[in-house]
Amino acid sequence: MPERSDDELSLACPAPLIGTERVLLAHGGGGLLTHRLIEQVLAPPLSSTALDARHDGGLIALAFGVRLAMTTDSYVVRPLFFPGGDIGSLAINGTVNDLAMCGARPLGLSVGLILEEGFAVEDLRRIVASMARSARAIPVDVVTGDTKVVERGKGDGIFINSAGIGLVREGVDIRPSQVRPGDAVLLSGDLGRHGIAVLAAREGLSFETTIESDCAPLLAPVSALLDAGLKIHCLRDLTRGGLATALVEIAESASVSIEIDEGRVPVCEDVGGACELLGFDPLYLANEGRFVAFLPADEAGRAVEVLRLLDPAMPAVHIGDVGSPSEPPVVMRTRYGGRRVVDMLSGEQLPRIC
Amino acid sequence: MPERSDDELSLACPAPLIGTERVLLAHGGGGLLTHRLIEQVLAPPLSSTALDARHDGGLIALAFGVRLAMTTDSYVVRPLFFPGGDIGSLAINGTVNDLAMCGARPLGLSVGLILEEGFAVEDLRRIVASMARSARAIPVDVVTGDTKVVERGKGDGIFINSAGIGLVREGVDIRPSQVRPGDAVLLSGDLGRHGIAVLAAREGLSFETTIESDCAPLLAPVSALLDAGLKIHCLRDLTRGGLATALVEIAESASVSIEIDEGRVPVCEDVGGACELLGFDPLYLANEGRFVAFLPADEAGRAVEVLRLLDPAMPAVHIGDVGSPSEPPVVMRTRYGGRRVVDMLSGEQLPRIC
Repeated sequence: MPERSDDELSLACPAPLIGTERVLLAHGGGGLLTHRLIEQVLAPPLSSTALDARHDGGLIALAFGVRLAMTTDSYVVRPLFFPGGDIGSLAINGTVNDLAMCGARPLGLSVGLILEEGFAVEDLRRIVASMARSARAIPVDVVTGDTKVVERGKGDGIFINSAGIGLVREGVDIRPSQVRPGDAVLLSGDLGRHGIAVLAAREGLSFETTIESDCAPLLAPVSALLDAGLKIHCLRDLTRGGLATALVEIAESASVSIEIDEGRVPVCEDVGGACELLGFDPLYLANEGRFVAFLPADEAGRAVEVLRLLDPAMPAVHIGDVGSPSEPPVVMRTRYGGRRVVDMLSGEQLPRIC
Repeated sequence: MPERSDDELSLACPAPLIGTERVLLAHGGGGLLTHRLIEQVLAPPLSSTALDARHDGGLIALAFGVRLAMTTDSYVVRPLFFPGGDIGSLAINGTVNDLAMCGARPLGLSVGLILEEGFAVEDLRRIVASMARSARAIPVDVVTGDTKVVERGKGDGIFINSAGIGLVREGVDIRPSQVRPGDAVLLSGDLGRHGIAVLAAREGLSFETTIESDCAPLLAPVSALLDAGLKIHCLRDLTRGGLATALVEIAESASVSIEIDEGRVPVCEDVGGACELLGFDPLYLANEGRFVAFLPADEAGRAVEVLRLLDPAMPAVHIGDVGSPSEPPVVMRTRYGGRRVVDMLSGEQLPRIC
């Protein structure tokens, strides 16, 4: 576990110091350096109410009380195909999941492809078929698209951007700043399958049983929670940077503290074993089918029931609670009774995981 | 001018023959091979009503008669900075222009960056500042974003995807299939500046005067046409593939023929000279601030007036007319009284022009 370093402290510094003249791989890791790139270089010039909310999607108000959510993600995962998914299923599910995290049902997706000269048309067909299958399963339409090709050696096979728009459900107001002391933190399932599955496929590692990515659409569990009338304050899917980074980001946005209980955080045996062997921490591993939900503590039990009823294989757990602001903002009670500071992902754990 | 070849004829062939096992640069050129990649590989599995309309953006119907347009484009232009614009201004204007071509006012944009490890943060700051300036000028908000980083040698500095959503104006129905015999074809200004400006910057060519890209937002001229109550049937901005490709695509979508008059197509002296010198045809050059409009012939005169009043520097011209279906679908009367078949761009003229 990283100690708080000078790096972390400099976050509080008002000077626009990204700390480097050149973009590093870790600027795309979803952790501290990504955060700093966004806060110091990208977001200030482009500032808007929607962007400044630092939510998984931007909200746009129309007439008649209609609210739209818009989100975008580019997918650069390597390898393109891995147990449990591929870049095509990621590109559809990942973007729809970001809409779900805003309490929105998808209205349509756009798909932008950047292909490298020489990419196999057969692989492209496989990827497009996977996108089509994933979109039908949700269901959502791809309504528009674009294709560019760059010279050999100027790309890497295929990059996919998908953007999505969705209709925010009436009456819901789900965003980081809604989180408050007294909220419970729910985790929708076990951690780390996606990160380990992609790593294993990339490095040719094999474990006793094949670990499959958790890549999955999250619209149904979110809809189930909202249909049950639960007062969800915030949702966040646990992609790059993992659970740890998501909790720190939300605690900082909402000016609260979060305490979670290590013993309650589910990690399957295979993933746990792989982490021990390879020196990874499951709190920082990427997931593509897991989310945290913040809601009033007295509704946590019912929320867990709703999720377990929907999918008994997805062991939703009440992993912690929100308190008043404190330093450090996120702490984990360890199995052995200690307290461990939980920081954002520092550096790059697994490049190009999504 | 390319003759109709076996290549063109094979378009009519029902077998899924893209004609190559590997992606070629020309599949991104916006011409015939792009068309074939879309029609044979990308679009069939992802088929939806919106996508099948082959419009610059996909249309989505909401309640209360509200219609949204959604569009996406990835930008891979080289060099990143060129006279009259840069990849940042392109990424904002290009996407908003696609919304304008649907008769929509922008509600919000998403921006997805794919950075190469080692890219200069200073260049990134310049590009983001340019995006911010362009967005404010329209005005439109960037409501959400994403950043990925790929290893050195796996990208090319920066690629930008921007997607946009817009609100389609009440009462308008602008799309290729609305074009009908008797329509006039209006061109909003002179051709080819963007293509030549980027080429000159890339190759270090200098002409007597610097040719600047025409990169510009097209929302204002489209709004002026619609505010004037003109019955616009279709709009198309003339990016990759140029005027020629746009006309062929629209003629095929609408099952009509189009005849244009070479003598009326404006090309400025510098661009004309550069084309002669370098062997380019202005009909195929990319533009980033020009569009064609299709509307009833008896409204063409007023439309030209409206556009000239808005911007006297943009010499809008009635360049041709729509007729009943015929083969070939698009023909140009030459300056010398001949008739020339106008085909889609065949092969790749200038890679990575946007």
